[in-house]
Parts: sequence; C-alpha cells; structure tokens
Amino acid sequence: MLSTEDQLIYEVYEIKRPEVEGEILMGVSIVHPGKVGREFFMTKGHFHTVLETSEIYYCMRGEGYMVMETPEGETSVEALSPGKVLYVPPRWAHRSVCTSRQEDLVTFFAYPANAGHDYGTIEQQGFRKLVLDGVNGPEIVDNPRVK
Amino acid sequence: MLSTEDQLIYEVYEIKRPEVEGEILMGVSIVHPGKVGREFFMTKGHFHTVLETSEIYYCMRGEGYMVMETPEGETSVEALSPGKVLYVPPRWAHRSVCTSRQEDLVTFFAYPANAGHDYGTIEQQGFRKLVLDGVNGPEIVDNPRVK
Repeated sequence: MLSTEDQLIYEVYEIKRPEVEGEILMGVSIVHPGKVGREFFMTKGHFHTVLETSEIYYCMRGEGYMVMETPEGETSVEALSPGKVLYVPPRWAHRSVCTSRQEDLVTFFAYPANAGHDYGTIEQQGFRKLVLDGVNGPEIVDNPRVK
Repeated sequence: MLSTEDQLIYEVYEIKRPEVEGEILMGVSIVHPGKVGREFFMTKGHFHTVLETSEIYYCMRGEGYMVMETPEGETSVEALSPGKVLYVPPRWAHRSVCTSRQEDLVTFFAYPANAGHDYGTIEQQGFRKLVLDGVNGPEIVDNPRVK
C-alpha cells in the first residue's frame, strides 16, 4: 500500500495459495479516488519477476486506466470500466489508476502463482505514461522523468 | 458443446492466446437451463492434461454448482451464484451445472495456458457426484455408474 500523509491510496487483498507453477493467485485491488498534484491515485505497479507471465483483470466497479509498458519501452494505456476484462500479456509492467472523483476502482486480478513481483525496476524512473486530471477529463501524457 | 436431440446444452467462448506457460487462457462459459431425465444440464467436465494446474471461475449470472473430484476419488460440490469466485485447485476435475429453470449459468474462467484438457478420463464413467432435480430443490447424489 502507498500512502501520502497517512492517506490510504490503495488496498490489495489476496487469497493465499502455494506460489508454484500451475496454481493461480487471485484477489481484489481497490484504488481509492484522489490525486497527488494532478496525478490520479494509482497502484505502485510492477513487472513480474518471472517476466514471461501474464495477469488478468476484471473491473468490478469504478472508472480508470491500466497503464502498461514493456522493458523495451512499448506502452499501452487501456480504459477500465465495470464488466471489462483486461489481459496483461507476459512481459508488460502494469499499474491501475482510479479516475473517478468519488468511487473506488475495484478490480479482480489473477496471475500464475510463480510470477513474483518486481517493483524495483519500474520504481527507478516510473512508468513512461502518466494519467493526469485535465480540464476535459483524464489526460494521458509522457512522463518527463523518463529519458 | 454437448447436445441432445439438437438442443444446445452449453457454449464456451475463449480468447486465443499462445498455449504456453506464463500465459493465461480465459473466456466465458454458458450453461443453458434444462434437464436430461432428472439431471440438470451441465458441461462435459475435464481434468487438465497437465494435472498440476488450477482454474478460476467467477460466476456472472445464474445459479448452479461446480462438481469436482480428484483422481483419488475425493469429491467436492460447490454452489455458484452471481459474484462468487471459485478456485479449482490443481488435480481437480470440474464440471459446472445449471440448476436455474429459466436463467443461463454464466461463468468467467481462467487457467494456465499450458494446462490442456483431458475429457477422456472422466468420460469413461462420469463424475462421482450427480446434481438431480429433487422435490425440494437440487439433490447431490452418488453416481451409481461409478464403482
């Protein structure tokens, strides 16, 4: 969980299963509404330690985006809304962003139990794309910190 | 798909992805309401060819059961209703059964893409448990064909 001045930004609840091939880990992610500056609240985001593993998301509630990128610098930003299923293919780092002003972004996720989480790689400079609060709704812009 | 006298019993829609470790295959299964004798309509059911792989189900609509068993003869029958997530652990054969008289049983499923399907093993004598239409609702009974 990330917090800013003790404000809770997101929560993740996961069912425990053996972290081995063939098992699937799954749970629920809740990103609360809010902003840090112009940037909407989001999850920290991660690659999988086993890079060649995927993840699925089913949006249960709220509005937002999945921000994704590969180690080679390809990017993709997909809208999330209730009932939508999103497949994050192997190799793509991913983070979810809540763009509603009042409602949580609630997603159900599942991924191969041996995948692991690599937060460090993406933490160094952040994702290549940012989702900002704009005058005409959410704006997807390049992250100036990424060279 | 199974059919009896040209009646459609169930449908499966799957998203195509490479059938390799790390990928996840997913889709939607629709079991229509109906009966063959006293037995409610159901999917054919299967083990995974790679036995040590799991599967997840999210019930989107309808009412029914997931009937499960291991090669060693353990059995489990779990109720399905909208919003419920069911985890089928590695090694468990599984089939879904629609017990509503009017509404489809609609589930979203996901499993490791290298799992494969083994329909033959369970087809020889059927699952150990049957879900029948009883006077006081669905009845779960032993399958007399299984010795």
